Amino acid sequence: MLELRLVQGSLLKKVVESIKDLVNDANFDGSATGFSLNATDSSNVALVALLLRSEGFEHYRCDRNISMGMNLNIMAKMLKFAGNDEIMTLKADDGSDTVTFMFESPTQQTIVNFEMKLMDINSQHLEIPEVDYHAIVRMPSSLFASICKDLSSIGDTVVISVTNEGVRFSTRGDMGTPNVVCRQNTMVDKPEEATIIEMNEPVSLKFALRYMNSFTKATPLSSTVTLSLYSGQPVVVEYKIAEMGYIRFCLAPKVEEVDDEANP
Amino acid sequence: MLELRLVQGSLLKKVVESIKDLVNDANFDGSATGFSLNATDSSNVALVALLLRSEGFEHYRCDRNISMGMNLNIMAKMLKFAGNDEIMTLKADDGSDTVTFMFESPTQQTIVNFEMKLMDINSQHLEIPEVDYHAIVRMPSSLFASICKDLSSIGDTVVISVTNEGVRFSTRGDMGTPNVVCRQNTMVDKPEEATIIEMNEPVSLKFALRYMNSFTKATPLSSTVTLSLYSGQPVVVEYKIAEMGYIRFCLAPKVEEVDDEANP
Amino acid sequence: MLELRLVQGSLLKKVVESIKDLVNDANFDGSATGFSLNATDSSNVALVALLLRSEGFEHYRCDRNISMGMNLNIMAKMLKFAGNDEIMTLKADDGSDTVTFMFESPTQQTIVNFEMKLMDINSQHLEIPEVDYHAIVRMPSSLFASICKDLSSIGDTVVISVTNEGVRFSTRGDMGTPNVVCRQNTMVDKPEEATIIEMNEPVSLKFALRYMNSFTKATPLSSTVTLSLYSGQPVVVEYKIAEMGYIRFCLAPKVEEVDDEANP
Repeated sequence: MLELRLVQGSLLKKVVESIKDLVNDANFDGSATGFSLNATDSSNVALVALLLRSEGFEHYRCDRNISMGMNLNIMAKMLKFAGNDEIMTLKADDGSDTVTFMFESPTQQTIVNFEMKLMDINSQHLEIPEVDYHAIVRMPSSLFASICKDLSSIGDTVVISVTNEGVRFSTRGDMGTPNVVCRQNTMVDKPEEATIIEMNEPVSLKFALRYMNSFTKATPLSSTVTLSLYSGQPVVVEYKIAEMGYIRFCLAPKVEEVDDEANP
Repeated sequence: MLELRLVQGSLLKKVVESIKDLVNDANFDGSATGFSLNATDSSNVALVALLLRSEGFEHYRCDRNISMGMNLNIMAKMLKFAGNDEIMTLKADDGSDTVTFMFESPTQQTIVNFEMKLMDINSQHLEIPEVDYHAIVRMPSSLFASICKDLSSIGDTVVISVTNEGVRFSTRGDMGTPNVVCRQNTMVDKPEEATIIEMNEPVSLKFALRYMNSFTKATPLSSTVTLSLYSGQPVVVEYKIAEMGYIRFCLAPKVEEVDDEANP
Repeated sequence: MLELRLVQGSLLKKVVESIKDLVNDANFDGSATGFSLNATDSSNVALVALLLRSEGFEHYRCDRNISMGMNLNIMAKMLKFAGNDEIMTLKADDGSDTVTFMFESPTQQTIVNFEMKLMDINSQHLEIPEVDYHAIVRMPSSLFASICKDLSSIGDTVVISVTNEGVRFSTRGDMGTPNVVCRQNTMVDKPEEATIIEMNEPVSLKFALRYMNSFTKATPLSSTVTLSLYSGQPVVVEYKIAEMGYIRFCLAPKVEEVDDEANP
């Protein structure tokens, strides 16, 4: 059986909110290591990988590996019952076709129970490969989110370029060609406000803004985001989940030649 | 003539907001006792009873009983002129077919006047009967509102059951069967955060969530709500209006047998 | 060339937001005096005049008069990139058909650049005449905005009347005839909360609320608004822009006889 207890139950709510528009149905996998999810979006363009390590739970018991297929929109509706301070308990018996969630308020005043049917989902487990990236950018997650949102009111794609100057986000639309440059900046009041750029080689890649905007739904999970870039390869957009793990999104670049909008 | 002056003029605004979706047209009745309203919703399933006692007004004069038919949606639009701190004066001459409202800001800087046409409304005056209820639950009004809202994203009805365990709200939908249990809890920082359950007999009743959600529009009027339950009888949902009276909603239960979702 | 640098870059954003629903395309004019705009709305009923004086800029250079035609909706989208603290630089070369905007965050962490195409716009430069008004009312801009908004839920027009009593805003609709009286009031905690009425002669004029509501989009630019009224003449609604200039709207009155709703 799988039984896990998470003091900050709202975390699962934020996780589901951040991926439900990308992935409709997915398997949540329980193992000795932790609670995880690996899925591709319906158009097979983006990959999402979630890991919540077993040590991060107040209680974690997993007798054997278990894979639980859930519809993320139903889950999101169910998780609305969980307030922000609620303690979550999830239980699934081996071989059962249901999972139960329980949310307790800190004062034990209210207890929410619900049972959810599991689904059979065929999915391939795709790992996001670890490589020596050409450039890794860590920046405030809210800044990244607002840049993607603003650019998408002008164009459909974003070119992300890392050079000595910093990281440049640019788009091109009928009404103009805005670009935003974020410079390395570590002179900040709070460490999460820093922009830190590690560049081994300059790199410039073009992505669909639609996906980027979808990834930024994970912004409530972390105050920073990390973009790992390698020429011609998918970008990895990672939000760390404090003391528990991460949620990573992986998106293939657009293959057309990157034009001069990135290098004016 | 009727003439009344209410220091907290926004109270009438909140009252109208809380019932306008349930009742389109209704008679407001002035008498020596106070300012009141008794109405059924358009489908005759729910009853609403409002009382604002004469002592609660800064000034209250009612020479003879008067019944004033008003359209609540028009009233709601008119009352938008009243800010939160405004002092309200309402005047109606006997036999007149209009009523005048005046709102003064505390500093007298702005004064809003409007005259509204009265309507002839035939209505029967239905009293909510007082009985020895099987169970009376007092709980935070915001908690009750959020439970009703969350349940209605899953199902159409709520079963409210009071047992030794506490009060249980449950629904049933395609995607699962959530239930929320609120336990008696008086160990709270503020008295209005308590959940107090008086049970003479266990009781379990099923109601349409659509109406419950409509009743919770009265949440801004009071920090607590009281549910009075009697087997086979309508529930009374009461919001006290501080030092003035109350607004009560009365709803007949669904007559199908209460199934096991309430008693798992 | 024109080159100007504005520490409070969000100001241009607020200016564009406040006029873009009234005017689609307009010429921004640069001269030694400052940066200005004069335009009529598409139906030629209202006039808008903006002035940002050169002294208000951190840096201002204008070698010769320049007129730059811009689409205000495109501009508004572009200006979304500018956060609230950003420093704006605008550059246009003489004879060029583009203008560049740059927004720098105070810490220099992010820099937004965009180039926008200019348009040829034929426009006549209409001055708002200065006259000895019958009455001038200065009042909190948020109060004026909320009165116009509330009245427009009842009727289409507002009669603005200045008498010894104060300034009265009234409308007439199917559901009643609300009116709001604001009295002279200088006994306030903050000077911007005052209502100051200078009356040489009583005056009463009727205007379309649709335009008034549009003008109130300039509310974020100033905590006070000034209404200058002259019988039979257009009203001037002015929002001062601190230490820089103003935005003025001018609207012709409705010519039907002002009926008794204004003088009950």
